[in-house]
Amino acid sequence: MIKIVIDTKGGDKGATEMIKGAKAALMKYDQLSVLLVGDESVISSECKKLEMPMDRVEILDAPLEITNYDSAADAIFNKTESSMLKGLKTLSEREDLFGLVTTGNTGVLLTGAMRYLSGKDRVRPALAAVLPSENGGFTCLVDTGATIDCNSQMLHHFARLGSDFMKQSYAIDSPKIGLLSNGSESSKGNKLVKETYPVLESDESLNFVGNIEGNRALSGDCDVLVCDGFAGNQVMKVTEGTATRIITDIMKYAHRTGSDEIKKLGLHLMEIYDIGSLGGGYILGITKPVIKARGNAGEKAVVSIAGMFVNMASNKAMFDKSKNKI
Amino acid sequence: MIKIVIDTKGGDKGATEMIKGAKAALMKYDQLSVLLVGDESVISSECKKLEMPMDRVEILDAPLEITNYDSAADAIFNKTESSMLKGLKTLSEREDLFGLVTTGNTGVLLTGAMRYLSGKDRVRPALAAVLPSENGGFTCLVDTGATIDCNSQMLHHFARLGSDFMKQSYAIDSPKIGLLSNGSESSKGNKLVKETYPVLESDESLNFVGNIEGNRALSGDCDVLVCDGFAGNQVMKVTEGTATRIITDIMKYAHRTGSDEIKKLGLHLMEIYDIGSLGGGYILGITKPVIKARGNAGEKAVVSIAGMFVNMASNKAMFDKSKNKI
Repeated sequence: MIKIVIDTKGGDKGATEMIKGAKAALMKYDQLSVLLVGDESVISSECKKLEMPMDRVEILDAPLEITNYDSAADAIFNKTESSMLKGLKTLSEREDLFGLVTTGNTGVLLTGAMRYLSGKDRVRPALAAVLPSENGGFTCLVDTGATIDCNSQMLHHFARLGSDFMKQSYAIDSPKIGLLSNGSESSKGNKLVKETYPVLESDESLNFVGNIEGNRALSGDCDVLVCDGFAGNQVMKVTEGTATRIITDIMKYAHRTGSDEIKKLGLHLMEIYDIGSLGGGYILGITKPVIKARGNAGEKAVVSIAGMFVNMASNKAMFDKSKNKI
Repeated sequence: MIKIVIDTKGGDKGATEMIKGAKAALMKYDQLSVLLVGDESVISSECKKLEMPMDRVEILDAPLEITNYDSAADAIFNKTESSMLKGLKTLSEREDLFGLVTTGNTGVLLTGAMRYLSGKDRVRPALAAVLPSENGGFTCLVDTGATIDCNSQMLHHFARLGSDFMKQSYAIDSPKIGLLSNGSESSKGNKLVKETYPVLESDESLNFVGNIEGNRALSGDCDVLVCDGFAGNQVMKVTEGTATRIITDIMKYAHRTGSDEIKKLGLHLMEIYDIGSLGGGYILGITKPVIKARGNAGEKAVVSIAGMFVNMASNKAMFDKSKNKI
């Protein structure tokens, strides 16, 4: 059995949607049980309505909500009774809990994760995304926006976190580490990249493969792509923006021509390239798995993230590789 | 009549391809004439072979080539007789010449442009790309890689150059200026973006519309998108990489299913999203139009760039907007 904490508050779609997701996840994964954190009365009544299998459900009352207007510095001291922070604290204290998922405020989550789930080094955690690569595998992009301004020491740290994560969760023996740059030659890069290159190159614990250009970001040339949070945010959002735009074009074309064949293609591409539905971002550098779902995550995302936890617990890649190919 | 300088050397495909492009451009644009710079004997013999209309062709002998291994600092002093630098010098000296196109080394080109074509301020020129936006218009992305590490003064300068360019070449009265960031709120951004925001905001000559996220880069929310050369390079390359990947998926699917309809769609998308075929990058901040074509530019790119010059000369947008929609 694996038991995960689900923060029912802080999302755009409300607690009901998160609880519906929990129900669907419980139906899908026999080995799963959940600890639902939030407003107890709301959770109880929803559970009844949805006929939840209550032998696999536990409820933790924490009606206070972390909003997007909360600053991390304030929340960490004044909102310890919020669903997110109480959830993190409970996760850190109880051995039977495997991980936590929340749709809430990223800044508070990172600070909370550092407070309650830090390892010995107490480093700032990184936010990683695992994206489908061209060759049918996956690339872990780190950092995707937790730390916007970085130095080479941070990027070195991201490389190590990403490498460990891909070893553990994807069973890759020696993950290839790439450094996002504006050219593949070792001489290319901004100041940060030029400072980081020799640091990664000289770390013998890393399988560093050099600079990777933006058009090769998701080519599969590397298993871990390291960059500062500003650049990582651009890679994620530009990929998403371009894919959305092309797929919108295709759906319009299908509509205009009335072609079912093209509509089918468009829907299929939508499934592959919908970065949102892939689940959430991983918080790396802490002692237990925590996943940040998008603010607008709904039932489908909760199920997908539950699957990520189940697969992590069984130490195998979370996605079916065959699905990631057209 | 408009006369443009074509550097026949420095490209991956050799002089013949550039001269073929010149011929095709002369056939397409009646008002065009060309000055071909390079190895005179090669150019003369190619012109004969291709039956060029020699009344609209002039040849300038400069057999020395700028390669990708030349450093800008060296070349600018020791290779003034190269086709690129002799071309730039001639462009600066002769009133009958409108602009120049080259496929050669970007670093040498920028330094050469600054040496021979600087305005009064002698600022470092920027490299801009004009990309088709979602709404059928165009977005000028600046800088796309000429200056990798920037400060807020440089980004302010890029905003002004981009604004002037979109006024002049696209007849937009008050171009909307966006700042590439990791969130749309004014509080978002890395150190550079946060420093640049108030500078752009307080410049009354600019129609600053605030921060733009990567997924909205080519949405048409702004006419000029300002960023440092590292980020601009990522936007260009990630867009290209994502588009190429999706279109490759579509063509594979067409091949497997044998669907002519889907193949037609794939080819159509290829035309819209092939950033390479759109022409080249504009060098902004100098006294005459200079366009940097890709190293692998061929006949088609030369024709497309000649069209850009012809349209600039007649002060109207260079692309047919209807073409940019599916």
